[in-house]
Amino acid sequence: MLKPEDNERLARVGPGTPCGELLRRYWQPALLARELPENDCPQVRVRLLGEDLIAFRDTTGRVGLVDAFCPHRRAPLFFGRNEECGIRCAYHGWKFTADGNCVDMPSEPAPGNLINRVKLKAYPTFERGGVVWTYMGPRNLMPSPPDFEWLRAPDIHRCVSKTYEQCNYLQAMEGGFDTAHSSFVHNNSLGDSTPLRARDRSPRIEIERTDYGYMYTSTRAASPTSNYVRMYQYIMPNQQLRGGVTSENGGGRSRVPKIDGHIWAPIDDEQTLVYNFAYGYDESVHLTPEFVTHWESFAGRGPDDLIPGTFKLKRNLSNDYLIDRKLQKTSTYTGITGVNTQDFALQEGMGPIVDRSKEFLASSDKAIITLRRLLLEAIDTVSRGELPKSADPRLSRDVRAHDEFVPADKSWREHFGNAMKAKW
Amino acid sequence: MLKPEDNERLARVGPGTPCGELLRRYWQPALLARELPENDCPQVRVRLLGEDLIAFRDTTGRVGLVDAFCPHRRAPLFFGRNEECGIRCAYHGWKFTADGNCVDMPSEPAPGNLINRVKLKAYPTFERGGVVWTYMGPRNLMPSPPDFEWLRAPDIHRCVSKTYEQCNYLQAMEGGFDTAHSSFVHNNSLGDSTPLRARDRSPRIEIERTDYGYMYTSTRAASPTSNYVRMYQYIMPNQQLRGGVTSENGGGRSRVPKIDGHIWAPIDDEQTLVYNFAYGYDESVHLTPEFVTHWESFAGRGPDDLIPGTFKLKRNLSNDYLIDRKLQKTSTYTGITGVNTQDFALQEGMGPIVDRSKEFLASSDKAIITLRRLLLEAIDTVSRGELPKSADPRLSRDVRAHDEFVPADKSWREHFGNAMKAKW
Amino acid sequence: MLKPEDNERLARVGPGTPCGELLRRYWQPALLARELPENDCPQVRVRLLGEDLIAFRDTTGRVGLVDAFCPHRRAPLFFGRNEECGIRCAYHGWKFTADGNCVDMPSEPAPGNLINRVKLKAYPTFERGGVVWTYMGPRNLMPSPPDFEWLRAPDIHRCVSKTYEQCNYLQAMEGGFDTAHSSFVHNNSLGDSTPLRARDRSPRIEIERTDYGYMYTSTRAASPTSNYVRMYQYIMPNQQLRGGVTSENGGGRSRVPKIDGHIWAPIDDEQTLVYNFAYGYDESVHLTPEFVTHWESFAGRGPDDLIPGTFKLKRNLSNDYLIDRKLQKTSTYTGITGVNTQDFALQEGMGPIVDRSKEFLASSDKAIITLRRLLLEAIDTVSRGELPKSADPRLSRDVRAHDEFVPADKSWREHFGNAMKAKW
Repeated sequence: MLKPEDNERLARVGPGTPCGELLRRYWQPALLARELPENDCPQVRVRLLGEDLIAFRDTTGRVGLVDAFCPHRRAPLFFGRNEECGIRCAYHGWKFTADGNCVDMPSEPAPGNLINRVKLKAYPTFERGGVVWTYMGPRNLMPSPPDFEWLRAPDIHRCVSKTYEQCNYLQAMEGGFDTAHSSFVHNNSLGDSTPLRARDRSPRIEIERTDYGYMYTSTRAASPTSNYVRMYQYIMPNQQLRGGVTSENGGGRSRVPKIDGHIWAPIDDEQTLVYNFAYGYDESVHLTPEFVTHWESFAGRGPDDLIPGTFKLKRNLSNDYLIDRKLQKTSTYTGITGVNTQDFALQEGMGPIVDRSKEFLASSDKAIITLRRLLLEAIDTVSRGELPKSADPRLSRDVRAHDEFVPADKSWREHFGNAMKAKW
Repeated sequence: MLKPEDNERLARVGPGTPCGELLRRYWQPALLARELPENDCPQVRVRLLGEDLIAFRDTTGRVGLVDAFCPHRRAPLFFGRNEECGIRCAYHGWKFTADGNCVDMPSEPAPGNLINRVKLKAYPTFERGGVVWTYMGPRNLMPSPPDFEWLRAPDIHRCVSKTYEQCNYLQAMEGGFDTAHSSFVHNNSLGDSTPLRARDRSPRIEIERTDYGYMYTSTRAASPTSNYVRMYQYIMPNQQLRGGVTSENGGGRSRVPKIDGHIWAPIDDEQTLVYNFAYGYDESVHLTPEFVTHWESFAGRGPDDLIPGTFKLKRNLSNDYLIDRKLQKTSTYTGITGVNTQDFALQEGMGPIVDRSKEFLASSDKAIITLRRLLLEAIDTVSRGELPKSADPRLSRDVRAHDEFVPADKSWREHFGNAMKAKW
Repeated sequence: MLKPEDNERLARVGPGTPCGELLRRYWQPALLARELPENDCPQVRVRLLGEDLIAFRDTTGRVGLVDAFCPHRRAPLFFGRNEECGIRCAYHGWKFTADGNCVDMPSEPAPGNLINRVKLKAYPTFERGGVVWTYMGPRNLMPSPPDFEWLRAPDIHRCVSKTYEQCNYLQAMEGGFDTAHSSFVHNNSLGDSTPLRARDRSPRIEIERTDYGYMYTSTRAASPTSNYVRMYQYIMPNQQLRGGVTSENGGGRSRVPKIDGHIWAPIDDEQTLVYNFAYGYDESVHLTPEFVTHWESFAGRGPDDLIPGTFKLKRNLSNDYLIDRKLQKTSTYTGITGVNTQDFALQEGMGPIVDRSKEFLASSDKAIITLRRLLLEAIDTVSRGELPKSADPRLSRDVRAHDEFVPADKSWREHFGNAMKAKW
């Protein structure tokens, strides 16, 4: 439960808002690199942290991320021309580089010094791991570019996608740090008590604060002599890692041992783009296109699950996720198809910004409570004009998640050993 | 004409508003019983007086009407599971009875006393006459359950339906107490002066205040020696009865002598659900399924008139009610098909909340003026912490409407005699 | 660049706003005459300067422009009956003339003097040149009716249409006074340097204030010895004339020498109806139906370009004007088909009301800067209770635009000579 003013403080992300300023102290994903497949290809609209922007890949391959409106007369650059190392407004032909400098002003008989004085708002970009990153804060505070382990894994060992979610980023992200819910929402075989999550539905949670945020483990009893322990990291301010190394169902390795994660990038206060990524445990693990399609479809966001030309699910809030009440009665907990779609139903169904002043939290909500506390503390730090420690990307550089069966009489920390160290 | 502040006072129905509080001193229709056709069937969304709720029929057949959001983390119970005498949230499996008590908390390793402390908001329900009723006010002021005559008539002698209307409840209800308009809006045979309402278009209105609200009669000259008198009741705060016993066109009984009525249940300030009911004059009058379909279709809300899966008319504000201007020129007053659809065009066309400060009222508006006055007085009574007399359901228990031809030299009261007494 | 408060001052047009009052000192186009094709035909909805109105043509052919809602109970007159010299409300049959006088009150047993006291808001109308004009200001300040030259040209020499635009009138109108943009937005043959506008993309602009607003010329170098000079007039507060006499491409007359123009009539703050008109240079120039269709289609608003039953373009903001990025790469500056559609993309794409406090104006924006200044001055004049000089229609009576090739050593004024005088 939060005070209404703290709920507001955490939810609002526009320029000048406390949390908006916090998020602007970190590099954020602006779009997928593949949305700009070629040099000089069509520009795309980007709305991020409540700001309307345009992304374009120039003739050299560099990505510009600039104000959606020309500084001259505020015409929309979406209808402009991406050509010869710059974006050109269609209204009067003024042209700007990815840095926002004006390099042509053909409507003016004698542009003179005007050309140097007019600037297009432009944010720095950095392309890595299939994502175009940007930094929207004060330049003097700009951290070194993102260097998460998953960004270092070569393409064939990594996959990344994004999905549109119609609610505030925080209630979406809280779903990601809620280990308990998988025993319910994601129970897709009612009456079958074989799966571990069906056998132990109230996992024990341990949380440990770190420089980059926190890590937490959930422990489920797998047998009288063995526990299944899964580690998650919260990399501030809006990223998650989680272990996907061990198949929960059998013990031993699944055929594709990997680490998974999300970033919840706020479009604005009431909409979010969820970046979904995974990368192989080590060099032996390839994430082939076939596997990726299978994996995304399982999550409910495969190629056939999206409204063509968008990142929106066909099963969405407007159609009750095509819930099948008969299926819900007989086979699955929700009657909704797609693991992430099930999450969306719960998260979007709360409304655009959930009212946390009406909650009733319990012990299984520890990870969420801590996450909010860390965010509120960091917001305070930024409001005081200081920089949160976690803004230094070196602190999260070598973090990786893990999961494994651990003998009941052994500590997970000892058992995991080197598995928690980055291998890429 | 009303002062703008009185217009607001009458129109707003949310929790804590003056009229919202008044409406919460009476049992209100929450949904049709047949929307929950079986025990443990899928729950349905209910929005009533600006509150988002979920209705479910539990394993014993009892109807729960509860907060649409789980008290734990505000997940939407619409996606939950209705099973074994309770509604279970799909997020973490917390389960609640129709009374709002928590009976299971499977995500918690040791729920302890928490299970007794957490409550789901639940309103009492009462099922009668094909309607699920609820009371949303303070429990210590809860009246005895509704006992209108039409609720006592057995199913085969009664019908009830509901229709969505896209405007404030009050302008919809005012239409119901406006006898004069039927000579115009509902004139579906232009140029034919046979129908009584075409012959006398300015009925005389008499109003008499009662304990439950008021009754009023409209008197139209049928011939030099005979008047047609129709009685209507206003049962506070939002119900109407009207006589449908006598066919206006011929004198004597129509083949289905019945009493009709509506309740206008506010969804919120700008939307209404209109409950439509009718019941036979006495045991000899059956409302067969064939008759009901015919009757509903005549009103414009028959099975073919609704958008499938909704209570919304296909002929609606968004498509100008499919008005046929040629028909309007030659045959009917409005060019719109369906008697109630004609009403909706006028009422919804006024805008979400009509601006009554710009009205110019006349003598034919007496019933409406009185209705507003009664409502404003009752709102004041409730605001003072008192209970309006009409909140006692026993006062409206035996009320029934009537209509009949009355010799010009006789009083309707004398002529109606016992017809105004409940027969069920 | 404008101060935010001046931007607001110019953009808001509702009753009581400073600019709304200014616009109410002039006759405004309310609808096309052909929208009311016959006496007693169906009424149409008109929203103008933020007011909801109904236009109807009565039995004598006279056009009434009245409040959209009946003064009795605010029922929508759109569903009323247009019959026998008046509009009749469908609710209770009250009937009003085009002047707003009540002439029938059939629901009242004894209307008495009431019928004289109730008035329907009615604005004066005047039909000319295919347009129904209205005046919405104080009656004592009403100017003589519009008498622009194009209204005097007989039908076969004139055409007029209207198009819906989804943004504030001012950014639409500013596009009309922006001569420079045609070298860019409307360049539909990339790489072809033959057209004059491709050869000289930074025209010189001269502005001259007049009693009715201003006139301005743009001068483009056509050859070392010749300039192409085009004259535009700004007829306050929201009309434009522009020369279409000379084909820019070849010199000499195009086959249809004419004068063109627009009026930008605000629906409300965020929507506009653009009236498009043209009329022949003199009696020898006929605008045949075939030519008009060709001309409108070239502009992107031909019969096939509109959503049937509306004045809205099929290529619109909701579908990115069906932009063809391949076409934009290879053939046309915008990839959008239709000359006016190209304008709409830029103007509507700015958002409902462009934020002029973020502009960076240049020398090519002189005409726009002056236009804003004139409007702000006139708004001040009206706010002081005075009447702007330009409100007298006699001052713009004989104004016409022109365009011609002018020898480089000669002044356009001398060369144009009599061409600038009205010929109708």
